[in-house]
Amino acid sequence: MHDLIILGGGPAGYMAAERAGHAGLSVMLVEKRAIGGVCLNEGCIPSKTLLHSAKIYDYATHGGKYGVTVAEAAIDPAAVVARKNRVVRNLVAGIRSTLKRAHVDIVEGEGRILGREEGTFRVAVGDAVHAGRNLLVATGSEAVVPPIPGVREGLAAGFVLTNREILDLAVVPPHLVVVGGGVIGLEMASYFQSIGSRVTVIEMLDHIAGAADLEIAALLQKNYTKRGVVFRLGCKVTAVGEGEVRFESGGVSESVPADKVLLSIGRRPVTQGFGLETLGVLVDRGRIVTDDRGRTNVPGVYAAGDVNGTWMLAHAAYREAEVVVATILGRRDRVRYQGVASVIYTNPEVAFVGETEEALKEKGIQYRKVVLPMNFSGRYMAENEGGDGVVKLLADPVRERLLGVHLIGSYASEIIFAAAMMVESEMRLSEIREYVFPHPTVCEILREAVFALE
Amino acid sequence: MHDLIILGGGPAGYMAAERAGHAGLSVMLVEKRAIGGVCLNEGCIPSKTLLHSAKIYDYATHGGKYGVTVAEAAIDPAAVVARKNRVVRNLVAGIRSTLKRAHVDIVEGEGRILGREEGTFRVAVGDAVHAGRNLLVATGSEAVVPPIPGVREGLAAGFVLTNREILDLAVVPPHLVVVGGGVIGLEMASYFQSIGSRVTVIEMLDHIAGAADLEIAALLQKNYTKRGVVFRLGCKVTAVGEGEVRFESGGVSESVPADKVLLSIGRRPVTQGFGLETLGVLVDRGRIVTDDRGRTNVPGVYAAGDVNGTWMLAHAAYREAEVVVATILGRRDRVRYQGVASVIYTNPEVAFVGETEEALKEKGIQYRKVVLPMNFSGRYMAENEGGDGVVKLLADPVRERLLGVHLIGSYASEIIFAAAMMVESEMRLSEIREYVFPHPTVCEILREAVFALE
Repeated sequence: MHDLIILGGGPAGYMAAERAGHAGLSVMLVEKRAIGGVCLNEGCIPSKTLLHSAKIYDYATHGGKYGVTVAEAAIDPAAVVARKNRVVRNLVAGIRSTLKRAHVDIVEGEGRILGREEGTFRVAVGDAVHAGRNLLVATGSEAVVPPIPGVREGLAAGFVLTNREILDLAVVPPHLVVVGGGVIGLEMASYFQSIGSRVTVIEMLDHIAGAADLEIAALLQKNYTKRGVVFRLGCKVTAVGEGEVRFESGGVSESVPADKVLLSIGRRPVTQGFGLETLGVLVDRGRIVTDDRGRTNVPGVYAAGDVNGTWMLAHAAYREAEVVVATILGRRDRVRYQGVASVIYTNPEVAFVGETEEALKEKGIQYRKVVLPMNFSGRYMAENEGGDGVVKLLADPVRERLLGVHLIGSYASEIIFAAAMMVESEMRLSEIREYVFPHPTVCEILREAVFALE
Repeated sequence: MHDLIILGGGPAGYMAAERAGHAGLSVMLVEKRAIGGVCLNEGCIPSKTLLHSAKIYDYATHGGKYGVTVAEAAIDPAAVVARKNRVVRNLVAGIRSTLKRAHVDIVEGEGRILGREEGTFRVAVGDAVHAGRNLLVATGSEAVVPPIPGVREGLAAGFVLTNREILDLAVVPPHLVVVGGGVIGLEMASYFQSIGSRVTVIEMLDHIAGAADLEIAALLQKNYTKRGVVFRLGCKVTAVGEGEVRFESGGVSESVPADKVLLSIGRRPVTQGFGLETLGVLVDRGRIVTDDRGRTNVPGVYAAGDVNGTWMLAHAAYREAEVVVATILGRRDRVRYQGVASVIYTNPEVAFVGETEEALKEKGIQYRKVVLPMNFSGRYMAENEGGDGVVKLLADPVRERLLGVHLIGSYASEIIFAAAMMVESEMRLSEIREYVFPHPTVCEILREAVFALE
């Protein structure tokens, strides 16, 4: 009998297992594929490994403006993928040893919920049946595969790829078509454009970058357009196959040649096929419904991570997992999302936290706004020849607090956490002004922007 | 008659001028050399420009482990210096235009304090005499030139350089000897080692990196030793000249060949030669004495920046300048230094805030400690093949707050601000644990380290 059985070994699952084990609970973690989940094995970490190699290659081929010249530069995508696999293996091993130190039982295989008897949950993995007092569903999400003609056949033939397969692509497709201009689509567009593919991004919406502020999304698009990526916005893919992608643009049918097609139109929670229905857990529009402590409608059953369909970000999953463990331990804790930042690891990077300008307008919330070029930062100037990064702040004019912080430029990914602290803690602008920002940094731009709000 | 006359157009001076002008005061700023001061013209910004080019060159020559190969890479130090000059010119122009928008009168020339008459300060620049109600001394600091035989002649001959001259060095000296292993010495050692010099660092203390925690300093030294920099610690330079530097090591006299010598043993406040004595301003051991609002012993006379000899960092100067302006405006504000971070822009970067372990021991303050390898961060692993970066936290075990945060590794410079906020605001560890750190970032390592303190 375990105190806690966890279905799914991704960020939510392994974090909950570690924290619960550390706190002395007896924990079983069931994973059918690979510890670390999508994020570690076929998402965040692999893509960052690829993008780092691309960045080095970009530097080598465009170093002239910094006084560095290179006779001949080459990138070997097979070596990049091999290195990615090593990095992933090391990190998976690291998580395994952390879980071991926390005395977590890792069970590899597909878990099936059999039901609940006398307050005890029964979960089968293969032939064995395990019992647990609490159950955490952390089954994550999977790539949405739309019913477009040719997609299923394309996936089977290796012509169409999801995030899973593209990260193992050890060749440079002459022409890559990316269907969906969200985070995954843009990061992969960035990588393949850098290493030599012609890239076309087809997006149904009239803007790229999903939930990003539109002003920032437009700047990102401008950067990639300059580098040769073709964006087809407001376009709906109608068929895929025979070396091309067909789409509709304003009622007109068009096509674009493709050697490979990346399908990145979104992800959907995994709530079926593992017996969740036996417990009567409430699922709404494909998402497990939880409160802000990770509790479902069934006592003892919790959900965290992508499966709740809330933010679908690894770091939100971490926090949700911690709160679930705190709840099981009887500690008061709850998840707040206002300080959850989003990052797009393009070059330039995009990062943001809090409200977009569009959301504020839609909600009818009053705001003051400042947009400053990152060239106000000496370090940014020193490191970015011709850079057009900006910081955009949205502030509550009455309460004198930040509502949203939006960055595009170098180090945005690492700077945004400080902004997330400001938003999450609802710091007054006057408080922020008194912090000493190290000089010369790019994060100083936050200080200048807050000052400009005065 | 001006509300405020400022002597010195470096970080303290230009920030005070901007803020005071913005607040409606009539401000005159006197600068004898170049607006932006040492930091912008011959310090922080130029060095970051050089170091960024070196980083690109390092990537080009060591990209193999990331799948990037380069046939032949070259760095042109003259092009790097020319670019540096362009970056500096642009930033100086930016500050000039900011000051213009704040209606600041910029007077170029050497200012001399003539004295005070009926509550009015008189300052001469050339033949003109200006009057001001308040006076801010922001004359900064200069490189210490020790009375070592051969140094003055070496400076005159261009064999010995300070931070000023070395940033314009458009050749690669085959052998560079750096006297003084503090921040400036290490950054320049890093640059010249990258672009092809053999570098020897001679340091009087038994460790490099000045005020850094010793564990971090040792790791930094190990990294550079591996790359071929020779460190001679506990050594005292006795003579310079004729293509060599002579020094004493444990009573034994030695020498090392040198094509160029960088003198970087420290900086000293500039308090003489401009009439400060006419006002009776208290100077102690070469530093203008101020309170935490920037006031000297003479009413109406303020000092900020390196001239107070307190932290001698541009960002401390900024804050001191803001507090001086607030004080003149009658607002309550004061400078606190506990959240002032330090950064060394080597590769790996070093950044820290708060107390070192040595300082805590010396002060007899109880602490708990955790040191985590940065390899706990997936992004660090993805971007650093064979990296040995760490985060070191020192915490108050009773009050459950951070006493010191020490980083060595990528992005340390941009991450440290978040740690500075934690230290400055005396956040409880439990509060920090509830923040959502974006994944995958290197800054997540702070979260893991705080968790490990539990």
